[in-house]
Amino acid sequence: MKTALTAAEALRSILEATPVLDPETTAVREALGRVLAGPVVSTRDLPPLDNSAMDGYAVRLADVAAASRVQPACLEIATEIVAGGRADQPISPGTAARILTGAPVPPGADCVVRQEDTAREGDGLRVFAAPALHENIRKAGEDVRNGEQVLDAGTVVGPPQVGMLASLGRTVVSVHQRPRVAILSGGDELVEPDQSVAGGRIVSSNSYSLAAQCLTLGAEPVYLGIARDTPEDLERLLRAGLAADVLVSSAGVSVGDRDYVRAVLTKLGCEFRFWGVKIKPGYPLAFGCFPGDRGPLVFGLPGNPVSAMMTFEQFVRPALRKMTGHRRYFRPTLRAELGETFTKKPGRLHFVRVVLERVGDGVVARSTGNQSSGVLRSMTLAEGLLVFPAEATELRAGDSATVQLLDPEEFFASDRAGF
Amino acid sequence: MKTALTAAEALRSILEATPVLDPETTAVREALGRVLAGPVVSTRDLPPLDNSAMDGYAVRLADVAAASRVQPACLEIATEIVAGGRADQPISPGTAARILTGAPVPPGADCVVRQEDTAREGDGLRVFAAPALHENIRKAGEDVRNGEQVLDAGTVVGPPQVGMLASLGRTVVSVHQRPRVAILSGGDELVEPDQSVAGGRIVSSNSYSLAAQCLTLGAEPVYLGIARDTPEDLERLLRAGLAADVLVSSAGVSVGDRDYVRAVLTKLGCEFRFWGVKIKPGYPLAFGCFPGDRGPLVFGLPGNPVSAMMTFEQFVRPALRKMTGHRRYFRPTLRAELGETFTKKPGRLHFVRVVLERVGDGVVARSTGNQSSGVLRSMTLAEGLLVFPAEATELRAGDSATVQLLDPEEFFASDRAGF
Repeated sequence: MKTALTAAEALRSILEATPVLDPETTAVREALGRVLAGPVVSTRDLPPLDNSAMDGYAVRLADVAAASRVQPACLEIATEIVAGGRADQPISPGTAARILTGAPVPPGADCVVRQEDTAREGDGLRVFAAPALHENIRKAGEDVRNGEQVLDAGTVVGPPQVGMLASLGRTVVSVHQRPRVAILSGGDELVEPDQSVAGGRIVSSNSYSLAAQCLTLGAEPVYLGIARDTPEDLERLLRAGLAADVLVSSAGVSVGDRDYVRAVLTKLGCEFRFWGVKIKPGYPLAFGCFPGDRGPLVFGLPGNPVSAMMTFEQFVRPALRKMTGHRRYFRPTLRAELGETFTKKPGRLHFVRVVLERVGDGVVARSTGNQSSGVLRSMTLAEGLLVFPAEATELRAGDSATVQLLDPEEFFASDRAGF
Repeated sequence: MKTALTAAEALRSILEATPVLDPETTAVREALGRVLAGPVVSTRDLPPLDNSAMDGYAVRLADVAAASRVQPACLEIATEIVAGGRADQPISPGTAARILTGAPVPPGADCVVRQEDTAREGDGLRVFAAPALHENIRKAGEDVRNGEQVLDAGTVVGPPQVGMLASLGRTVVSVHQRPRVAILSGGDELVEPDQSVAGGRIVSSNSYSLAAQCLTLGAEPVYLGIARDTPEDLERLLRAGLAADVLVSSAGVSVGDRDYVRAVLTKLGCEFRFWGVKIKPGYPLAFGCFPGDRGPLVFGLPGNPVSAMMTFEQFVRPALRKMTGHRRYFRPTLRAELGETFTKKPGRLHFVRVVLERVGDGVVARSTGNQSSGVLRSMTLAEGLLVFPAEATELRAGDSATVQLLDPEEFFASDRAGF
């Protein structure tokens, strides 16, 4: 087992071991946010028939080509066609069909005259202007042709894709499976949120924040509970997590139990690839997997609330993005100007929690304050994570540096509509 | 009732009539993505007690102040304290407590010596280096103090907020209600996706795409079904939607039924504020509400798939964002360079579906192709919506223009980790 890896080495090791999950069939109504496991090919034309883009009259162009306000063309209204109606009866010379938007264009008609360019008296119609050939007719297959590939594998299913699939008559679609992520907390000092914290006990908040991180990625968290600091209790709970795709253990704040977790998982067949990554917060990160994919990917996260969320963010999130079929695994990054000077010792890459301010076209980054790995406030305030490289010791105010952007949707949300 | 409003006038009219929904209490586990209806004030210190940041020994600084490698301080180990353990026994002069990370610091101790700076033999301890006063001790309340406001009203609940709430022992939290959005389709030509489209029938895809749009906003879609083109059927279904916060009717592609919708809703007590907005796609948008808030906001959307999604995007989405307690209602906008020339007639603001390419620090926008309001492909391909102002007739290749960014999270997602 390797130790003291760089962040990049750790990430490479994890992604190499991470599979893309198999396809499954899901209801289109449930597919929002999922990633298509294969292309979607249409088995019909959209629209299915030539239809009218306007309320007006379907006519033969030859009958109205010379029409004008002064010399209108006079036609007989032979039929009326509504959307969803039938258009079996051909338009013969000298006749017109009253037609509503979306209604099928009858055989023989080769253009639609807008209602505004006509006058009707009983079954008589006067046409004051000639459209062009095929004007105001939406051609069958204009949107999608039968046999055409309309959505590519790897597409994230958003509202337009849901609408398209429905339009094609699809009720189910093939998407990559959602990773099931088993989450274990461990530590004799931990209690659930509704339990007493008398005597210095601490709420096991990591299972909550990690489950929420899973949900934002479309993964399915499975909470295993809080293991007590005994090998027996750990083994009991960890065994329950072996059927998951990913097993995330966030130890308590003590170190004793962390050794048990590793020992028990090794006994269960997990092979650890590394322990210890030169980052802060989050050094004591462990990663392993089961030979022949006979078990979940295993992440042993540090127990401090900030360290647990940070290592999930940096290492578990990209793995889950890969599993769910995404092609790009990482947060947006931007170059931000530093609003203050940051210093540290060399040796570890720091992820500094920062608030971001948009100034002109640029972004200015400032610390959220106390960066202790016990200070969850640093995460609740953070809009970005400043990447402070391992060997650097100072990033000066005014310099530009790389920042990972945590929530682009909300960060860039606007108080103006754009019109 | 006004007509032929500008996009900005329509939006103003809608937002004026849109309430922020009342608070409700929800489980913290269910609160992800919701907006806090009030501030969250802590009723405890975090951490609850002074505790050790290291594995080591809690000591009295006076006993070790002069310690060095050459002249170590010699102490007796009087007790051992683990995380979650008790630290009732004071440290008396000349003694030390073995202490693990996270464990409470006992009375009398005023610093923690790192394990690496000690040697243990039975109950005897030699200390080779003196820490500073309070070194390696995390102070009670360092993260959060009892009585402190830790989260502001209007905060969007993300994973760190879930973790914070759990840490505070909160199992429920007050958030703005999710809007319930009743969705009606209408038109004799419409069928559900699993029904036959023989004879030119069309799948009622709007209810699917609109429901998906609601879900991405955290709103709760309620599908009323497809109304046939009779006042009776419309009234039956519309009545079922009156208990919702928002009623969205997407008519069929015919215009006849649209009049019924308005007539029936007026009969039911809805007062329409406007009909017709000078935009493309989506001119025939109607908006109304019930006097005294005794009914839902009512949006009559056009029936074309693209027009329905577009008017939802531009007018229903901001209203839903306001209802759910968000402070900023709109998509991010960016200035994009146009990769081609766009032309149109004056009079209507066009929302042009565009694909976006990141080039250097900038973004280049190009049309998705056929912009017909029947071409749903234009929406499935769109990464942004180019705002082509009402009175403009040409936007030239190379010009810069405003683009609404549809999915910043995926658009800006990166294939690099940032380290």
